[in-house]
Amino acid sequence: MNHIQGSLIYEGKAKRVFACENPNRVLIEFKNDATAFNAKKRSEIDGKGRLNCKISAALFKLLELNGIPTHFLELQSETFMIANKINVIPLEVVIRNIATGSLCRETPINQGTILNPPLLDYYYKDDELGDPILTERRLKLLDLISTSQIEKVETITKNVNKILKEYFDDLDLLLVDFKLEFGFNSLGEIVIADEISPDNCRFWDKTNSDPKERILDKDRFRQDLGGVIDAYEEILKRIERDSSNSS
Amino acid sequence: MNHIQGSLIYEGKAKRVFACENPNRVLIEFKNDATAFNAKKRSEIDGKGRLNCKISAALFKLLELNGIPTHFLELQSETFMIANKINVIPLEVVIRNIATGSLCRETPINQGTILNPPLLDYYYKDDELGDPILTERRLKLLDLISTSQIEKVETITKNVNKILKEYFDDLDLLLVDFKLEFGFNSLGEIVIADEISPDNCRFWDKTNSDPKERILDKDRFRQDLGGVIDAYEEILKRIERDSSNSS
Repeated sequence: MNHIQGSLIYEGKAKRVFACENPNRVLIEFKNDATAFNAKKRSEIDGKGRLNCKISAALFKLLELNGIPTHFLELQSETFMIANKINVIPLEVVIRNIATGSLCRETPINQGTILNPPLLDYYYKDDELGDPILTERRLKLLDLISTSQIEKVETITKNVNKILKEYFDDLDLLLVDFKLEFGFNSLGEIVIADEISPDNCRFWDKTNSDPKERILDKDRFRQDLGGVIDAYEEILKRIERDSSNSS
Repeated sequence: MNHIQGSLIYEGKAKRVFACENPNRVLIEFKNDATAFNAKKRSEIDGKGRLNCKISAALFKLLELNGIPTHFLELQSETFMIANKINVIPLEVVIRNIATGSLCRETPINQGTILNPPLLDYYYKDDELGDPILTERRLKLLDLISTSQIEKVETITKNVNKILKEYFDDLDLLLVDFKLEFGFNSLGEIVIADEISPDNCRFWDKTNSDPKERILDKDRFRQDLGGVIDAYEEILKRIERDSSNSS
């Protein structure tokens, strides 16, 4: 299918969104820009766009096969993805299986604590406010989505966690935590938007017990550990090895 | 009753707690030290200790008369209060009737928005962590108190809000929001601890519509508005006028 790249609709920290001929679709470009700590830390990492685009496409396909609605339609090239146009809900939904990162900076919960049941956190997506965490009461007060839509978002997030945790476990990867974003498609249905990649998931290599070496996600960039691209390549390699095995 | 001041048990930002002869009691001294923004801003304000001690005593008495359990026993002098010794729960429970302060810095909710029902926020009491806000899920995960104890704390907080809101309304004061702290007494019962004063309540003068002049609480210190002591004196004056009317 041929999609002519239309006008730029939106440019974010890591992606550009372009109009398509079909008004219900968009073309998403994955950039090489890396940001962390609410864009206080910035860099450009060659190859990141390609890896995140391919990893996201593979994971969206996996979720769709498991009945989870996403905005993904198809890859157009190595760094471009065709997706359904959606109305983004300004929420970041984080689910955590193991405590690390901001959770350990903001609470006395120790690094590495197994969270069972997984911990769900909502953040209000707003760069100026620094993406603040929302209590359940503040979330309801903001009235961004209805109570039944909140329940829908929670159910999808928990199901995605079950599917991905098991999937990555088979690839010898611990799914530590990840962030999802949601939106409404043209039919008004809630679907997963944005991306699912080492930029917004944390992966620990089960075959390596070294607390720094095992990190295969954006924490390598956040913590200046180096080897960012090697880590992202490793994730894609394991995903591709899996799909060549199962096909 | 004579209470000999024993050894210092604890010194906080605004109070000192001393042992009493009776091991179930403590003597609490209200200091003149003022701090704000997690003690990044500090000062000493002559007379603040006396005012907060007397205002707190009057409000604790009012709550006890309304069946709300507190740690308060009696005033010993103008800056010293006798209280039951309690095991402090490291939580700050904030209830808000009108949006202002951190809520408006952390969310898109506008200054002055009426919150109906009032908004309840939990914070983890920890200076090093900067007293972070806790979602309901994080609160349960920390396991500081049981689910039924959380319910008890919420019920008390909402009841206190109803009692104080009505009480201050009659004194021509809007109770904007306030923070409560709780602890377990020697019988294991949950009671209100700490203080209830313009240091941890926000009051707006209903007879003044100027958004700065009407402030009669610690926001005068936080925002460098001056007249801190005059504002606290005004709160005490209205409370004392009320009690002389009703007696």
